[in-house]
Amino acid sequence: MSTFGSAFRVTTYGESHCKSVGCIIDGVPPGLALTEADIQVQLTRRRPGQSKLTTPRNEADNVTIQSGCELGYTLGTPICLTVPNQDHRPHDYSETDLYPRPSHADYTYMQKYGIKASSGGGRSSARETIGRVAAGAVAEKYLAEVHGVEIVAFVTGVGPIQVSDAALQQLLGSVTRETVDATAVRCPDALTAPLMHDEIVSCSEAKNSTGGVVTCVIRNAPAGLGEPCFDKLEARLAHAMMSIPATKGFEIGSGFAGTHMRGSEHNDAFVADGKGGLRTLSNHSGGVQGGISNGQTIYFRVAFKPPATICQDQSTATYDGQGGVLAARGRHDPCVVPRAVPIVEAMAAIVLMDAVLQQNGRTATRQLLRPVPDELKAIKPF
Amino acid sequence: MSTFGSAFRVTTYGESHCKSVGCIIDGVPPGLALTEADIQVQLTRRRPGQSKLTTPRNEADNVTIQSGCELGYTLGTPICLTVPNQDHRPHDYSETDLYPRPSHADYTYMQKYGIKASSGGGRSSARETIGRVAAGAVAEKYLAEVHGVEIVAFVTGVGPIQVSDAALQQLLGSVTRETVDATAVRCPDALTAPLMHDEIVSCSEAKNSTGGVVTCVIRNAPAGLGEPCFDKLEARLAHAMMSIPATKGFEIGSGFAGTHMRGSEHNDAFVADGKGGLRTLSNHSGGVQGGISNGQTIYFRVAFKPPATICQDQSTATYDGQGGVLAARGRHDPCVVPRAVPIVEAMAAIVLMDAVLQQNGRTATRQLLRPVPDELKAIKPF
Amino acid sequence: MSTFGSAFRVTTYGESHCKSVGCIIDGVPPGLALTEADIQVQLTRRRPGQSKLTTPRNEADNVTIQSGCELGYTLGTPICLTVPNQDHRPHDYSETDLYPRPSHADYTYMQKYGIKASSGGGRSSARETIGRVAAGAVAEKYLAEVHGVEIVAFVTGVGPIQVSDAALQQLLGSVTRETVDATAVRCPDALTAPLMHDEIVSCSEAKNSTGGVVTCVIRNAPAGLGEPCFDKLEARLAHAMMSIPATKGFEIGSGFAGTHMRGSEHNDAFVADGKGGLRTLSNHSGGVQGGISNGQTIYFRVAFKPPATICQDQSTATYDGQGGVLAARGRHDPCVVPRAVPIVEAMAAIVLMDAVLQQNGRTATRQLLRPVPDELKAIKPF
Amino acid sequence: MSTFGSAFRVTTYGESHCKSVGCIIDGVPPGLALTEADIQVQLTRRRPGQSKLTTPRNEADNVTIQSGCELGYTLGTPICLTVPNQDHRPHDYSETDLYPRPSHADYTYMQKYGIKASSGGGRSSARETIGRVAAGAVAEKYLAEVHGVEIVAFVTGVGPIQVSDAALQQLLGSVTRETVDATAVRCPDALTAPLMHDEIVSCSEAKNSTGGVVTCVIRNAPAGLGEPCFDKLEARLAHAMMSIPATKGFEIGSGFAGTHMRGSEHNDAFVADGKGGLRTLSNHSGGVQGGISNGQTIYFRVAFKPPATICQDQSTATYDGQGGVLAARGRHDPCVVPRAVPIVEAMAAIVLMDAVLQQNGRTATRQLLRPVPDELKAIKPF
Repeated sequence: MSTFGSAFRVTTYGESHCKSVGCIIDGVPPGLALTEADIQVQLTRRRPGQSKLTTPRNEADNVTIQSGCELGYTLGTPICLTVPNQDHRPHDYSETDLYPRPSHADYTYMQKYGIKASSGGGRSSARETIGRVAAGAVAEKYLAEVHGVEIVAFVTGVGPIQVSDAALQQLLGSVTRETVDATAVRCPDALTAPLMHDEIVSCSEAKNSTGGVVTCVIRNAPAGLGEPCFDKLEARLAHAMMSIPATKGFEIGSGFAGTHMRGSEHNDAFVADGKGGLRTLSNHSGGVQGGISNGQTIYFRVAFKPPATICQDQSTATYDGQGGVLAARGRHDPCVVPRAVPIVEAMAAIVLMDAVLQQNGRTATRQLLRPVPDELKAIKPF
Repeated sequence: MSTFGSAFRVTTYGESHCKSVGCIIDGVPPGLALTEADIQVQLTRRRPGQSKLTTPRNEADNVTIQSGCELGYTLGTPICLTVPNQDHRPHDYSETDLYPRPSHADYTYMQKYGIKASSGGGRSSARETIGRVAAGAVAEKYLAEVHGVEIVAFVTGVGPIQVSDAALQQLLGSVTRETVDATAVRCPDALTAPLMHDEIVSCSEAKNSTGGVVTCVIRNAPAGLGEPCFDKLEARLAHAMMSIPATKGFEIGSGFAGTHMRGSEHNDAFVADGKGGLRTLSNHSGGVQGGISNGQTIYFRVAFKPPATICQDQSTATYDGQGGVLAARGRHDPCVVPRAVPIVEAMAAIVLMDAVLQQNGRTATRQLLRPVPDELKAIKPF
Repeated sequence: MSTFGSAFRVTTYGESHCKSVGCIIDGVPPGLALTEADIQVQLTRRRPGQSKLTTPRNEADNVTIQSGCELGYTLGTPICLTVPNQDHRPHDYSETDLYPRPSHADYTYMQKYGIKASSGGGRSSARETIGRVAAGAVAEKYLAEVHGVEIVAFVTGVGPIQVSDAALQQLLGSVTRETVDATAVRCPDALTAPLMHDEIVSCSEAKNSTGGVVTCVIRNAPAGLGEPCFDKLEARLAHAMMSIPATKGFEIGSGFAGTHMRGSEHNDAFVADGKGGLRTLSNHSGGVQGGISNGQTIYFRVAFKPPATICQDQSTATYDGQGGVLAARGRHDPCVVPRAVPIVEAMAAIVLMDAVLQQNGRTATRQLLRPVPDELKAIKPF
Repeated sequence: MSTFGSAFRVTTYGESHCKSVGCIIDGVPPGLALTEADIQVQLTRRRPGQSKLTTPRNEADNVTIQSGCELGYTLGTPICLTVPNQDHRPHDYSETDLYPRPSHADYTYMQKYGIKASSGGGRSSARETIGRVAAGAVAEKYLAEVHGVEIVAFVTGVGPIQVSDAALQQLLGSVTRETVDATAVRCPDALTAPLMHDEIVSCSEAKNSTGGVVTCVIRNAPAGLGEPCFDKLEARLAHAMMSIPATKGFEIGSGFAGTHMRGSEHNDAFVADGKGGLRTLSNHSGGVQGGISNGQTIYFRVAFKPPATICQDQSTATYDGQGGVLAARGRHDPCVVPRAVPIVEAMAAIVLMDAVLQQNGRTATRQLLRPVPDELKAIKPF
């Protein structure tokens, strides 16, 4: 449904043609410094009209904190965030409304709800993601302030153009939001970015669209996050990412490529981290083992399909099964991945914040107990 | 945590060294014919010792229905299913317990729970999946009986050996559990299966392990399943699959390969289905659009990493950071994908059954209302 | 937390000194005719300033539907409802802020959140209930339209003044919102209402406050609602009612008085209902048996304590333990029960709507199965 | 459904005529010393056949820990607890099965599930509470060990016989499980206990049943527990108690009697507690204010109706509406309150443990932030 998370719980609302979009965030730790500016920065990164690579619609998307804060601090009570829709009137129907748009949600929303709304598959609209981005900014504020967590998503594939494995390995350690935003395509790899840019422009000129891949890296996440067995950290991340519109795939660490490896190569050997703990020499696990974060860098990739809306006529059928041609209309993003970057970051932050609250509850509760006997400790005498 | 699902809700328990493993299933429709034999068949497909490709441990894994059934029918009350563990004593510690096993859950469970259990990352054990498989069999019984749903998972990759795209496309329509089980490797493609078999044997002989890919196809799923925006069907499937031990990736429909496509090629045009509704000509969407099933075949792929346990010595560190060599011990599956097949099917069935209950609740509730005005219906006069 | 319900799920936000209060409702059946007027009527019944029995603050409390509706019909997507706060600036602190107000939430909110907000126990404010009343109006619209459900709450106790048992029994069958609203005190019993009125006025003149009891009756609720074992209908109702600020007790059917009865007297014998089913001759059960509605009238009582805010000085201690006198300030309701009436109705409607969706899901799913054998049917041959 | 709780989550299963009953507990803090004996003691207090006041059926009710513990300590993984049913065969049907038993759950289970199980309203059976009592014992073990929490329930009403207010006030401070168990009726008031005993015996001899009241006191609960606004501590307690079979009412603190009081009398003034904090002089609030525990003693009362099963013939109707006489059969408890005592304690412990985990998560998370400015602290300079 429209609520995500357990201890840190985000509920979003809104579609294209209503008065506003936004969210309620429950479970925010009290005492966190928070103003609208903290949230606006990510909303601004998300909004269209930022470059000629995205749809020319220019939406202001100004957020208002309705509740849950006082004097610039969170109270611990629910935070409602709203962003007005510029054009909130249902549109007039035209002949093209006879057709469910191919690979859009018009047909399935009709199947599910029995209603043909003006906005078609209303909640499948990209505007729904505004509430996610706003909520993610709040989660991220805490994670950065307390744990120094850095969450950076960036474009690593546009159509056939892909960042090389070697470049990617390096970026996992070095990429920042600044280097990401240095190009309109949001690819921090100097070699690939211009090619991606050209690919999107060529797509746009061909009145077509293209898919792409967003990679996300999370540094400094504490160890111990994730709730076996069903709420493993990677399962929650996969759920979060695959709930973003237009996603078709998720992989963490070695991912699908890791299936080609042998165990002796894939296993991440341990070594002292010089701070009294352990780290791994390699990181094919992608920062999670057994569904729990191990303190290493978490990284994952998300596949986005080519946008279904294209500026070409399409042969398809009407709702009542008549074959025909759906005429092109409107102007749309030829590729969603540059704008998907802050959405991926937001969902990652929400998953992490929820896991932090759950694990802190366990740890704080456990630590009030007497110590367990030696037999149940990791280091045992022989 | 250990509960999955909303209206059809599965809670599992158990690890390697306790008395039993199993689950409680809540929300089972009353009046479903169900006996232990219905469940046992999938548990038997899951258990080890079935061929020389899997670990030689032979576990009987006999299930008992503890509650929720009478005279061979479900009552609608919670069904508890238990499977005894053969060896439920905690093992004696040996020197190798000084080491967290590389890419196992020993280290992260220690970080999370502060306890070094005999079973290491206890719930990350493959035995935890018994409860899932048992619960999935119940879900599947309903789906098959009422909707004729067919869920068939099969191996399409073992290390570098992969079923070709052309063969895969054909299998999506034709594969059955019988053809899957015809080979020990559970690959229904006659060309690839022997190569996979040899790959696993060679891995085993090299005291090593290999990863693999399981593809799952779901036929006859009703349209309208999945709950926007966070519980999109693909998001729930991704969550379910990525909660299975050893998984590293999930993709649905065109997946990562679809990111290379252009919209005009990727879009699935509609056509009359001859039964008064619509179907799509292609199925790059993988049966879901806007997070909701569209009535076409659902298919997805799951990546499994090479098992972390290998029969080789490994250089790594002890819990307290001393470098050393973890000696090989025990005998284990060189590749998990053949045995993962029924687990993937089970999780798919659980996700679907939950979605069916939710959607049936909405539809039955909606249909009691007066019809909406023409403006909100799909077919409008012009 | 701030979300209530499972299939019909209400999330509220807002406190006294923020920009707005409201809610997001998820799981609303699509196709329900709904306008702001449907919601406003209950908000207007809830707001203060309606008579000299309530606080003279006059709040407009105008609701706006932000999302989830089009052309006057629900879409099935989340409905966000907002009501602006008139005075949303945090107040200036005065000397009285040194004191946690006795029997208010100031002290416990400080213990819980570690923050002293301007609004003290912010979410314990009566304004929080606006979101509940708005959401309840949506639930009630469906229940009335489809099932003819009538939910009527009314005042049956103000301090020591109470409606007699005989009068109450009669009111259970006959009371309507019109007869309730005929008096400012919202007691439909002509004998008792003036006495209650005088009691509140006398309380007010004594700069004091008084407690009271609200009775709620639900007619025409379908049989079969409620989810054993933990979500029995009476358990959900009790949860809902005891989450309303200032409540101290809940009883259903015979309640505490029923503990004085013997089984032979308390048991509700069955009789044919003339429509092919059964009804009960008496209704000590209050419409629920085994946690499930039986189709008879549901009725329950809710106890409200005297408001903690009184216009008298009070001897108490400051946050740091200094004894002193908290000076009277402001003007407040001397008795909350008249205004609590629509809040109780709203929470009842939310509980019922959630139960209806859950039960419809089960029933619709079950009915697709083949019939069970005779042995599992109620009427068996002998 | 059959799961209760959020961070500490209990799922129960089982009815009268199945193989076993029990529960899975998720979210148990790791490192808690726990053996079956810790659990058995409360199960033994719950089981029938302990005195001539209860049903003569003698059930052993021996609990087995199936999972989640090792070497006598909890692992943090789910704990499955099972108790075998002695007689798990469905009974043969007799003529009395033509009748839904008055005020039992036979009729409503039939309405809900469409199935006539051997056990009638199966999950409404008293045996379902075994899983609750077992889970509660685990929660209580933690609460007692870490916080010194004492949870003591006791009988304060049997039919018209009631403990006096004066005696009750004294018992709130002094009652222990030992003094409760000193009499078969589980009333620690020496004056009232023999009268209650006689009342139950007289009821039993009259082949009738009687209702009663259980009062529960919780000492040493930490301040800050309870989650506004819907999961207020009293709302969760009410939910928990009203989910116990045969309950009809719940009140906390002053309860319904408090509605007769004026605010000046009802308000609990604060005073320094001599340990750097505050306590209240009176405790009409019952230990909760604004839905959050304030550190004072929590106390509440639960009303139980007279058992529906009586050893008399009853005039009623068959499932198909024929009037007739349901013959008496079997032997049953004439009054459930003595045996309800450990069930009430268990549910109280489960609610508290859940609240402790949630609040510990918030507090531990908050404390990692920088301190808030003085304006947001309780004590401000003037």
